[in-house]
Amino acid sequence: MTVAEPVTTPEPLPAAAPEEATPRDILIICYSGELEKTWAAMILATTGAAMGAKVRVFLTFWGLQTFVKDERRITGDNIMQKMMSAMQRPGISHRKLSKMNFLGMGPWMMRKLAKQYNVASPKELLAIAQEMGVEFMPCQMTMDMFGLKREDMIEGLGDPVGAATVIALLQEGNAPLFI
Amino acid sequence: MTVAEPVTTPEPLPAAAPEEATPRDILIICYSGELEKTWAAMILATTGAAMGAKVRVFLTFWGLQTFVKDERRITGDNIMQKMMSAMQRPGISHRKLSKMNFLGMGPWMMRKLAKQYNVASPKELLAIAQEMGVEFMPCQMTMDMFGLKREDMIEGLGDPVGAATVIALLQEGNAPLFI
Amino acid sequence: MTVAEPVTTPEPLPAAAPEEATPRDILIICYSGELEKTWAAMILATTGAAMGAKVRVFLTFWGLQTFVKDERRITGDNIMQKMMSAMQRPGISHRKLSKMNFLGMGPWMMRKLAKQYNVASPKELLAIAQEMGVEFMPCQMTMDMFGLKREDMIEGLGDPVGAATVIALLQEGNAPLFI
Repeated sequence: MTVAEPVTTPEPLPAAAPEEATPRDILIICYSGELEKTWAAMILATTGAAMGAKVRVFLTFWGLQTFVKDERRITGDNIMQKMMSAMQRPGISHRKLSKMNFLGMGPWMMRKLAKQYNVASPKELLAIAQEMGVEFMPCQMTMDMFGLKREDMIEGLGDPVGAATVIALLQEGNAPLFI
Repeated sequence: MTVAEPVTTPEPLPAAAPEEATPRDILIICYSGELEKTWAAMILATTGAAMGAKVRVFLTFWGLQTFVKDERRITGDNIMQKMMSAMQRPGISHRKLSKMNFLGMGPWMMRKLAKQYNVASPKELLAIAQEMGVEFMPCQMTMDMFGLKREDMIEGLGDPVGAATVIALLQEGNAPLFI
Repeated sequence: MTVAEPVTTPEPLPAAAPEEATPRDILIICYSGELEKTWAAMILATTGAAMGAKVRVFLTFWGLQTFVKDERRITGDNIMQKMMSAMQRPGISHRKLSKMNFLGMGPWMMRKLAKQYNVASPKELLAIAQEMGVEFMPCQMTMDMFGLKREDMIEGLGDPVGAATVIALLQEGNAPLFI
């Protein structure tokens, strides 16, 4: 497996960029559960970590369900939570495209093209990100609402936090991406 | 009604966060009219205000229609504008999920789960945000294009502004979230 | 053609905004190929440039296909890439709304309303943005995955870059918008 372009290519950077005393930390708010947005978030997270940036990823709403263990099928305590997980399978290997799904052909083609061009899958990128020290912060409120428990989630996530953590990081100057 | 987690819980903050001289203001660009994104925007806005941050919310495109009075059914001057409001009912109590709507069952389940876990509804959060001094800025261009008038909108919004206001806030260092 | 509000109206700016030594550059990550998000990105880019801000637009995933020449119908090298372009026509004049498409009636109404209220089309705004020095940076990985070549793309784009350029700009303090 190779993380093709993002990690290996040193690129010429735009000359006009203003210099800052301290490089900013990066805060990715991983809100969407779609395959292509998960991909974007994971590419930016791994690239950031590879460049020495401190990267935090806040997992919320649909984005949190991406970080449920792939093998879990139904999650939640009550019937509504179970129905929601049944209607939309959680786990990073089960993400769908936002469009052009065509009964799974769209995601399949996308994954195949990625392989052909040596772009790592979201799951591979996630493993790299965790190895590189990207911090994953699950949203407590989303865990409550969807009835998700620590044992439902993949290994290596941080403690659940709330919107207050996000706000504090924004106030401190993190560069935010709401994906 | 309780705003469960965001307002009441003081959380331990990430230790590695860089200190800045002045905490940044927060600019939420409320672009989407979906239920779950409206929720995210309102939770961040109220949490920010509760933490003493200056929070501004720019209401644009579908996001502006969320701030039409709930009881308005049809808005606009001409037939096209009226058709668009008819096809998608405005107002914060009439937001739909981006997926899993199932003829209204999805949003109903989501609201029921929220209630069960003491998460305030978008409408309740909006009232809190306004009380706490969050500034809501409607987009002039969107008002024109959709034929929305001041009397269509909820009370307490600021004067309509344009993209120039957004750019100026970005240049001045606001932490932006495009939701 | 007039760029109605964004360029011509000098607006009163929020008084409470904190002053910064240097105005921040703006980085728009143009990720979505939807008509209304393309519009939002182009309005912010032209307004920013008109106000003297340095604006960069990173074109990635569906957002890159917006910047394929309007007259190209099928792009890509292999059958999967060709199918993907066939299923979703590239080019800035062929963008669809995220909802309410109704076989093209939604986008048609939107464009008609825009014209009526003197809002420039995405294509017109793109021309203005390029004239004003907005920098458009195609994503190399997306070009690879979709099999897009330089000759498929509109004139005046910069060299393809990767996620590392985005991260560096974030670290340096650019104000990011993920649209």
